[in-house]
Amino acid sequence: MNASHCANNTRQPAPTNSLRARRLGVDTQYEAIVFMRKDCPVCRSEGFTAHTRILLRAGGREIIATLYQITGDLISHEEAALSEAAWQRLGLRDGDRITVKHSPPLDSLRAVRRRIYGNSLERASFQSIVRDVVDGRYSDLHLASFITACSARPLERAEILALTQAMVNVGDRLKWDANLVVDKHCVGGLPGNRTTPIVVAIVASLGLTMPKTSSRAITSPAGTADVMETIAPIDLDADAIRRVVEQEGGCVVWGGAVRLSPADDILIRVERALDLDAEGQLIASVLSKKIAAGATHLVLDIPVGATAKVRGREAAENLAKGLLSVAEHFGLKAQVVLSDGSQPVGKGVGPALEARDVLAVLRCNAEAPPDLRRRAITLAGAVLELAAASPPGQGEVLATKALDDGRAWAKFQRICDAQGGMRTPPSSKHRRPLLAPRSGWLGVIDNRRIARLAKLAGAPDAKAAGVELHAKLGDVVVAGQPLCTVHAEAPGELAYALEYAVANPDILVVEDQ
Amino acid sequence: MNASHCANNTRQPAPTNSLRARRLGVDTQYEAIVFMRKDCPVCRSEGFTAHTRILLRAGGREIIATLYQITGDLISHEEAALSEAAWQRLGLRDGDRITVKHSPPLDSLRAVRRRIYGNSLERASFQSIVRDVVDGRYSDLHLASFITACSARPLERAEILALTQAMVNVGDRLKWDANLVVDKHCVGGLPGNRTTPIVVAIVASLGLTMPKTSSRAITSPAGTADVMETIAPIDLDADAIRRVVEQEGGCVVWGGAVRLSPADDILIRVERALDLDAEGQLIASVLSKKIAAGATHLVLDIPVGATAKVRGREAAENLAKGLLSVAEHFGLKAQVVLSDGSQPVGKGVGPALEARDVLAVLRCNAEAPPDLRRRAITLAGAVLELAAASPPGQGEVLATKALDDGRAWAKFQRICDAQGGMRTPPSSKHRRPLLAPRSGWLGVIDNRRIARLAKLAGAPDAKAAGVELHAKLGDVVVAGQPLCTVHAEAPGELAYALEYAVANPDILVVEDQ
Repeated sequence: MNASHCANNTRQPAPTNSLRARRLGVDTQYEAIVFMRKDCPVCRSEGFTAHTRILLRAGGREIIATLYQITGDLISHEEAALSEAAWQRLGLRDGDRITVKHSPPLDSLRAVRRRIYGNSLERASFQSIVRDVVDGRYSDLHLASFITACSARPLERAEILALTQAMVNVGDRLKWDANLVVDKHCVGGLPGNRTTPIVVAIVASLGLTMPKTSSRAITSPAGTADVMETIAPIDLDADAIRRVVEQEGGCVVWGGAVRLSPADDILIRVERALDLDAEGQLIASVLSKKIAAGATHLVLDIPVGATAKVRGREAAENLAKGLLSVAEHFGLKAQVVLSDGSQPVGKGVGPALEARDVLAVLRCNAEAPPDLRRRAITLAGAVLELAAASPPGQGEVLATKALDDGRAWAKFQRICDAQGGMRTPPSSKHRRPLLAPRSGWLGVIDNRRIARLAKLAGAPDAKAAGVELHAKLGDVVVAGQPLCTVHAEAPGELAYALEYAVANPDILVVEDQ
Repeated sequence: MNASHCANNTRQPAPTNSLRARRLGVDTQYEAIVFMRKDCPVCRSEGFTAHTRILLRAGGREIIATLYQITGDLISHEEAALSEAAWQRLGLRDGDRITVKHSPPLDSLRAVRRRIYGNSLERASFQSIVRDVVDGRYSDLHLASFITACSARPLERAEILALTQAMVNVGDRLKWDANLVVDKHCVGGLPGNRTTPIVVAIVASLGLTMPKTSSRAITSPAGTADVMETIAPIDLDADAIRRVVEQEGGCVVWGGAVRLSPADDILIRVERALDLDAEGQLIASVLSKKIAAGATHLVLDIPVGATAKVRGREAAENLAKGLLSVAEHFGLKAQVVLSDGSQPVGKGVGPALEARDVLAVLRCNAEAPPDLRRRAITLAGAVLELAAASPPGQGEVLATKALDDGRAWAKFQRICDAQGGMRTPPSSKHRRPLLAPRSGWLGVIDNRRIARLAKLAGAPDAKAAGVELHAKLGDVVVAGQPLCTVHAEAPGELAYALEYAVANPDILVVEDQ
């Protein structure tokens, strides 16, 4: 039947649905939220109810927001109050008018449901899902459902390729003059494993191009971006990054600022809240950023250990296979280095504490953590060899030389200057040591719970917060000696962390000699 | 090691973390939300960041809420503003003080992650998940993730049993004096299939005990509770229900008011927003309510049709098997009736429109929809036979008699009076017919899109809204004749529904003769 006859003849004037926008100053992260009076003319004529998704329009832009209805006098009948995410996405100024209407059903949510019910998704579905995610059309409920669906039934190879491509497509892509652009990435979960700034400094000092874009922490107490931010500005736009890299051959910046795979940042927040990090999404997350960043050669570090993210050799090899296969599909030459993941790397866990370790290695200080230095040299060596910038088997020799003769340190300082100026990592205001309860040797350091301890102490948001380790596995300790120190910026956070330490006396275990 | 040494020696006084509670009047449905100034002393000393889950305490009660940080002047530094759900759960009065701290990690979320990653969950896990859900400890993200996890890898039989039991355990249970308590339930998705009030009236008039607790709509334009609410009060507490049932032998009330399987109401809201309704959750949802309501004999109606919820005979038989097997485990005698699901039942789709059909059948009006009458008699007959209240094969005869001689109608009126007084279903203010574009016979009525049309028109929240059908499958129609009428309470909703009808000209298809 042709229903257009009736609809077109409608004589009822459509309600204007126009409200005055008000900035409420509510930080809801990515989710756009609009607050409207339950009894405002628009709610009444439109019949909106709580948790409705509605379409907001202003000055040619439109977004979908979740409606929270207000019953009190917080806002007037003519107002619509917006969360920061909604306000900024619409580009509003106070007093601007917005129009509101029901949100049309999102086609891509049908694809999400298809996947939940056991179907694989094709390219076009991932493209429309990722597009809708980046455009802010998914509520937190939808994001959680999509992420869970991709974790509960692992993504197939074709799906990972499609998701990776979609994540690249919706963001910016960096192009470099150099034909050969190297990158490195560490896959998850080893506290203090902060090799990136050192590797960049070494390989850039040897003439390679390494424009490193890093993430903030997902579920860890610090990401490379969090650490680097305590040493130099990292929030550079694409032009600024280009300038730094043209001048110095390398950089260590935050990837989010240049919209490389912007979907990743949204998905990661929700993965973090759900503590989910499935392999397919991990591969798409890692590689979409590298592809968008214009890398041609990539070294991947996978730490393996009982309390690391990847717990066994078999799991590591599977993940490596997945990463290499997807990288190859996108024309990215990649190599995986499996490394020791049995304990944290360096001394510090937390942004500023890890930054101090990085600086000590680059300066070749006597107290520099030897394990961090060792790992940085291994990875820099692998990068040099993968990029054919050293003869096979000579990468580490070259890297060690660049580090020891000060070339890497000089390069690092120039990179920091180019990024906006070097600064000193902050120091914590509140500290407390955890003491060895008896003499013996240090038998266990639980990576996950060390990370949790550092997070309870405030990391990564509190930059100076975290855990400073004073002993390594196998070290002989005497009763009463500090095994580590908890650093915090606020007394409440120090108290939480210590409460956790009390409840978990086996984070660090001293065994009998 | 024993870290208690350090923690116990802490000399730092813990921050008081006390704020003045303010009722913000924000309806966020089940999710508890707290708004605090980003720069308030508590946020600063505790290091809370956006989307943190925090523990609120007041007067011996505690809840977990999602923190939204406020950057403007909406609230003062000494205040914490709460959503309605948070406010009510803490039982606050304006000016009360609350204390806030970081929420400890929820153990049950580990179980949710285990299920996402492919493990089955045992009894204790479902118990703790459902307990945390009912106590409001899950954010919307967590709820969406749990529901998706149970949809993406279907719940196993043991899991369905455990979930059902857990859902019964966390709520109230009704006990009846009668040894034999009958119930019926229709499984999903056939617009207008509102047999329940008629079946209750018939079997109660014949002396059976049928204390019917119904749900509101999940994804449909009306649930039985929504329909019944337009005829009589349905929001009765356990004592009131008992009084009605003792007096009349039957009732038709909303289940949510008596906390029968209260987890179901929370999960259903999220399932609705995600448009998910997987079999295992469906079985647990249906049967937990029946078990908690004290039913001993249960007839289940499963409509089967191309655009019904259950699309084919095989799917229906699988679902029937699942329902019967779980019912049996809990000592519930159940029977399934597979019914025709090819088109809507009766004329009306939407709360008040369906109520009119129900009343017409009970009053034996000439214009009563014969299909609704037929189905109600079939189901009442099945209930009578299952409960051995009629000889085998004689249930329908008995049911027809009670309907035709006015006993059922008299009983229904007495039930409505006992529930608080009968009322007249409201009429819509805005209507528009959809006309047959040409002559022929009605070949297709798309259940799902009829339901969507009724929802866009405002059902179930707008009680008078919905779709009124003027023709059945196979009816001969002439060009320009109204096939159905869209009813709405607001012009905006009428416009949306008509817009949808224009975009979907094949909701009702007229075929050549």
